[in-house]
Amino acid sequence: MPINKNEANKRLIEKINAVEDSYPKKFSNTQKILLTTDGSITAILDVLYGKITLTTLEQHFEDATEESAKLVNVNVGDEVNFREIIMHKDDENLIYAVSYIPIKRLTDEICSDLVRADIPIGRILKNYHIESRREINNIYIEKPNETLQKLFNTTEDMLARDYVIIHKKEILMWIKEVFPVSYFTKV
Amino acid sequence: MPINKNEANKRLIEKINAVEDSYPKKFSNTQKILLTTDGSITAILDVLYGKITLTTLEQHFEDATEESAKLVNVNVGDEVNFREIIMHKDDENLIYAVSYIPIKRLTDEICSDLVRADIPIGRILKNYHIESRREINNIYIEKPNETLQKLFNTTEDMLARDYVIIHKKEILMWIKEVFPVSYFTKV
Repeated sequence: MPINKNEANKRLIEKINAVEDSYPKKFSNTQKILLTTDGSITAILDVLYGKITLTTLEQHFEDATEESAKLVNVNVGDEVNFREIIMHKDDENLIYAVSYIPIKRLTDEICSDLVRADIPIGRILKNYHIESRREINNIYIEKPNETLQKLFNTTEDMLARDYVIIHKKEILMWIKEVFPVSYFTKV
Repeated sequence: MPINKNEANKRLIEKINAVEDSYPKKFSNTQKILLTTDGSITAILDVLYGKITLTTLEQHFEDATEESAKLVNVNVGDEVNFREIIMHKDDENLIYAVSYIPIKRLTDEICSDLVRADIPIGRILKNYHIESRREINNIYIEKPNETLQKLFNTTEDMLARDYVIIHKKEILMWIKEVFPVSYFTKV
């Protein structure tokens, strides 16, 4: 039996274990699932909290910089959509996310949904029956910047991950998700 | 704003809530996530338990019956792969699954992995970079048959769901997953 064929999630387990080992607190199962799943985060939050809401904090088109071009594998100067959102249940902020999406890989329909309305990316993919796969790049702990401190009203450490959604063998979206280390410890 | 575009997970929330309401016990968050996620179940178990193992209980090719043909949307008599597996961590059985896969929609590579080795379907899709989407059909409670009673050494109720994995707009796999109602209540 080709052992290596069973190792597909191993890198992911090693990543989450390495982050957990480097930190004084153990992570909860919900935290671990949120940081490693290749499924929709919105769908998980929807089920845990009842339907959650997304508020767009910032959304615009821009020319890809050296940094963002690398994240979504386009040329510097290619047009990308930048979106910064907060997922919340009523007044309770749950997860912050930022994304880069190369415009040239979007259909007009999806593009207009992204721009016009507060629809989570997972729901957009589901609505248009997009077949895709997700690849987790990094899982890590970071200090909150000013935006995160305000959104979550805390200076505590944040758990974060970034990943790409791949469609037709190209990167459709790069997404980073962040939440405070004390969140999802009891739910 | 087109409200209906934000309703993509609503049917799913309603399903899990309806099952929970019909039952004397509340479900744990891990149970709810396992029953509703559109991500890989193996990946979640891998992260919760450390890498888990799959043992194939039965695996063969057969002609699609009226019933199985409907599940995977092929003609009666078309060749399908039937697989019955148990996911376990060492001696602890965790989740039982049964699947039907129409052979005509598989590449030779995937087909041979299915037949030759105890590889979870989520890992096979990941290894071959298959882009897909999952659609949950049903979430329900059922009484264990003899196989389940033996595997889990209990006669208690089982939580179950069935879903399809869609690839190139066709059903690649129909899968049913089952576990005892007392499992994943504390993890």
